[in-house]
Amino acid sequence: MATATWTRRHVLSLEDFTSAEYDTLLQTAASCREILSRRTKKVPALQGQVVANMFFESSTRTRSSFELAAKRLSADTLNFAPGTSSLTKGETILDTAKTYLAMGADMMVIRHREAGVPHAIATEMDRLDTNVGILNAGDGQHEHPSQALLDLFTITSLLDFEYPRLKLLADKKIAIVGDIIHSRVARSNIWSLTASGAEVHLAGPPTLVPQEFAEYVHGKVGVVGAVGAKHSRPDLSGFYSNPNANASPNPQSPIPNPQSPIPNRRLFLHWDVEPALKDADFVMTLRLQKERMTAHLLPSLREYHQRYGITRDRLKLCHPGVKVLHPGPVNRGVEISSELMDDPEFSLISQQVTSGVAVRMALLYLMGSGKS
Amino acid sequence: MATATWTRRHVLSLEDFTSAEYDTLLQTAASCREILSRRTKKVPALQGQVVANMFFESSTRTRSSFELAAKRLSADTLNFAPGTSSLTKGETILDTAKTYLAMGADMMVIRHREAGVPHAIATEMDRLDTNVGILNAGDGQHEHPSQALLDLFTITSLLDFEYPRLKLLADKKIAIVGDIIHSRVARSNIWSLTASGAEVHLAGPPTLVPQEFAEYVHGKVGVVGAVGAKHSRPDLSGFYSNPNANASPNPQSPIPNPQSPIPNRRLFLHWDVEPALKDADFVMTLRLQKERMTAHLLPSLREYHQRYGITRDRLKLCHPGVKVLHPGPVNRGVEISSELMDDPEFSLISQQVTSGVAVRMALLYLMGSGKS
Amino acid sequence: MATATWTRRHVLSLEDFTSAEYDTLLQTAASCREILSRRTKKVPALQGQVVANMFFESSTRTRSSFELAAKRLSADTLNFAPGTSSLTKGETILDTAKTYLAMGADMMVIRHREAGVPHAIATEMDRLDTNVGILNAGDGQHEHPSQALLDLFTITSLLDFEYPRLKLLADKKIAIVGDIIHSRVARSNIWSLTASGAEVHLAGPPTLVPQEFAEYVHGKVGVVGAVGAKHSRPDLSGFYSNPNANASPNPQSPIPNPQSPIPNRRLFLHWDVEPALKDADFVMTLRLQKERMTAHLLPSLREYHQRYGITRDRLKLCHPGVKVLHPGPVNRGVEISSELMDDPEFSLISQQVTSGVAVRMALLYLMGSGKS
Repeated sequence: MATATWTRRHVLSLEDFTSAEYDTLLQTAASCREILSRRTKKVPALQGQVVANMFFESSTRTRSSFELAAKRLSADTLNFAPGTSSLTKGETILDTAKTYLAMGADMMVIRHREAGVPHAIATEMDRLDTNVGILNAGDGQHEHPSQALLDLFTITSLLDFEYPRLKLLADKKIAIVGDIIHSRVARSNIWSLTASGAEVHLAGPPTLVPQEFAEYVHGKVGVVGAVGAKHSRPDLSGFYSNPNANASPNPQSPIPNPQSPIPNRRLFLHWDVEPALKDADFVMTLRLQKERMTAHLLPSLREYHQRYGITRDRLKLCHPGVKVLHPGPVNRGVEISSELMDDPEFSLISQQVTSGVAVRMALLYLMGSGKS
Repeated sequence: MATATWTRRHVLSLEDFTSAEYDTLLQTAASCREILSRRTKKVPALQGQVVANMFFESSTRTRSSFELAAKRLSADTLNFAPGTSSLTKGETILDTAKTYLAMGADMMVIRHREAGVPHAIATEMDRLDTNVGILNAGDGQHEHPSQALLDLFTITSLLDFEYPRLKLLADKKIAIVGDIIHSRVARSNIWSLTASGAEVHLAGPPTLVPQEFAEYVHGKVGVVGAVGAKHSRPDLSGFYSNPNANASPNPQSPIPNPQSPIPNRRLFLHWDVEPALKDADFVMTLRLQKERMTAHLLPSLREYHQRYGITRDRLKLCHPGVKVLHPGPVNRGVEISSELMDDPEFSLISQQVTSGVAVRMALLYLMGSGKS
Repeated sequence: MATATWTRRHVLSLEDFTSAEYDTLLQTAASCREILSRRTKKVPALQGQVVANMFFESSTRTRSSFELAAKRLSADTLNFAPGTSSLTKGETILDTAKTYLAMGADMMVIRHREAGVPHAIATEMDRLDTNVGILNAGDGQHEHPSQALLDLFTITSLLDFEYPRLKLLADKKIAIVGDIIHSRVARSNIWSLTASGAEVHLAGPPTLVPQEFAEYVHGKVGVVGAVGAKHSRPDLSGFYSNPNANASPNPQSPIPNPQSPIPNRRLFLHWDVEPALKDADFVMTLRLQKERMTAHLLPSLREYHQRYGITRDRLKLCHPGVKVLHPGPVNRGVEISSELMDDPEFSLISQQVTSGVAVRMALLYLMGSGKS
């Protein structure tokens, strides 16, 4: 598997990914997919390495996908169970990470409900001069890189199964519909899809797709802490359970802005769904948290579905052969109609899950190669 | 290991098991037991295959047994933890199963508190034209096939260790004592034991062993939804968390009646324990849920023990050399006396647990062979 | 790896460990550490063996360390999850252990909040004439042998990395500071460190380091059930959930006193921290449970830190080159200052965690060799 162009130790965000990195990842994922088609779906690539799945925010789906990816590469896995952890005994998150480091973890897959936690752990691992790799499996409303990469792998593989690559999307139109403001999936996808040269169109109600998002790829919008609050890089001061922790990141700028290497990103914003869907090649729907309704950010779910829900009818606006994606789990009949979700002519949902294992294998392989 | 006569993809119920299938299973389990007696208790039979343990109803004991069986065959295992799952986010059970399918699960071991769930998932897997095998690890009050098969393996191995087979029980008398109506273990055992030609005698109070059970093997009694309700095949309409799920089974007949291939089953029913025990070769006791008492289905536990509890004294009614089984966990001093449970002269309880690993290896092996 | 002098099936306590056993363990741990430095950090030593991690008291840290140690030796692991277990269904702890025995567990790693549980299980396993090994991973306020052994390995390795051995500590002074009375870590460390010939000095407030502890190594103080209660060997009568369990240990003397094989242990007690620290070569700090304060056993945490907390300043009293240990998780700023904890010049905390995997590999290897 090709690793020539890969020098990245951590995968925390797609903001600064280069075209070469996307293509290396996509090609490695294609190799991993080939492994998964063999009779014995397993290779010894990471034998003896330890992948610690540290899901401070629980997730059976994503954790299983990473666990399986690690096992397919013959790595040993450790699952961190937040409910029974030392965190409840007052240990800080960095102390927990250092404990797994000292036990011999080679890579840590980290999910946390607060933005910036994987980045802070990566910074600490580098400060300690370790070669542990940190993989962001979803941090607050910041990013979820492996989800966006599996989306990218899914749709580029449709266009060229053997040789998926970023530029296949250069002349495509892609709509992302729904609750953009709260979505780490959307943020990661915005970086990867605009990097390809595709036109990316965001659509949703103004409460969930605020005007500022039109500027997101130009560095003028960061991660929102809370709706209605000033949009800024996240304040991490709260995530250390002990205020005396000496490795506290700078709350002013905890997530560095790595200056995106991709110029001329094309991002558009709509408060009606129709112009986003018009002639679109791909439609990405996002999960709608039902809690948004009680927070008065949306009308009823029924009204939401009527205005923004993706249905077979609405897809007639799109380019013929349009495909629909959803990161799951789906609220059937809210962001997408139940019949559309199950229609293999349109839905890529189960291919996304399958791609997830291959893409996570590729990430672990690329981050882990050259180790030990 | 012999797989010649095995064509069954799923193991959901023992109702339609043929004699040949029982014997193939028993012989394969004997081979697995031999593996477990080796210095290195492991074979590469299922290397690269993935067994997903989906215990929607939690169970350390049964889950550990399946997990160990899978590991002994070198399969990778995924454990689904219901507490942290997408189900709490509104995903349907079928969506969860489809997610594990898309991740690459080759077999799914499913326990659920509602009858018919494994069957519904198997139906969906077949509809999607997959070759995923579904193994029912206990569904509501319907069936628990692997438990009955390990019971069968335990007692036939006593009669012929090297060559356990169904017909060894043809002239035996077997008593099943206790809370029959709520027991999936009893229902599966009734199918397997009557298939052997043995006389099977049910005993317990009328509230727990209703008259209709005398007709169970003749297809006139199905799975009870609730005590006091009409006895019928289970109504599954409630187990889909989303009412729009398109794969909803027919609520009238969700579990098809596959017409048992075994004629002349011999099943008897008693409301006193003595006639059931008289000359019995094996006595199967069932766990008594203490909640039954508060539901006014039984008198005090003490009175229950006095009338139906299995003790050394009561065993004097049985055939010399009688053996006692219990699926565990035991309420010591309720369904069985504590001293009897620990008496190796009579109790097969720990052999049952040991048989469990061999039988589950055999099931996974038979279902998994020819895959990938 | 050397196993010549190892004949111990269970590791329950360090009270009766011989010098030869300590040295065999330390040398085996050094071999395991070498394995962990290889490119592929894994050996097939325990292939096909099953290690059951039975943490009735939950602990991510210690459980992960044992799980990783087992996986590095290629054992299969089973994790017992107390929350979802049959214990909640009324099964006794001995029944649970017997179930894992019957499933094929070769070793059981047991943590329980009550003293004596691992010992009672070991007694039952021997009574049943099995060769299952029981490893105490922390029982109430009794012992935590693997923690003391990793502490011993950490500090003897500092003195001779290649050939760590007990007698390297013969002329050292070691202070153990904090909540001695409630600490199983302290009790195990007292046995191992005094066995080396080192001077061991206990320090803490009288409520947490009662006068009787000066006699601990002379067999006059046992395990305390509760503060204020008479200090005695633990009463285990409460840990059987079923009073009829036939294997109930003798409540008068549930943990036999194996008569320590080491004469002339040197143990001292102080209610001020300074005399303990004076010229000390190693300082072991203990976790302070915040609950002790509400039980009126200590003044405020701030006052505790002022009188007994370990800081850079206080370490000036010690021997030059003094090192500080803590079993984790740390209450930063209470038992140890936050800056000291993170100072690699003094803190051995992360080496302790690393040693933990090697020491637990060594224990599993020594206990498991010759099995199956």
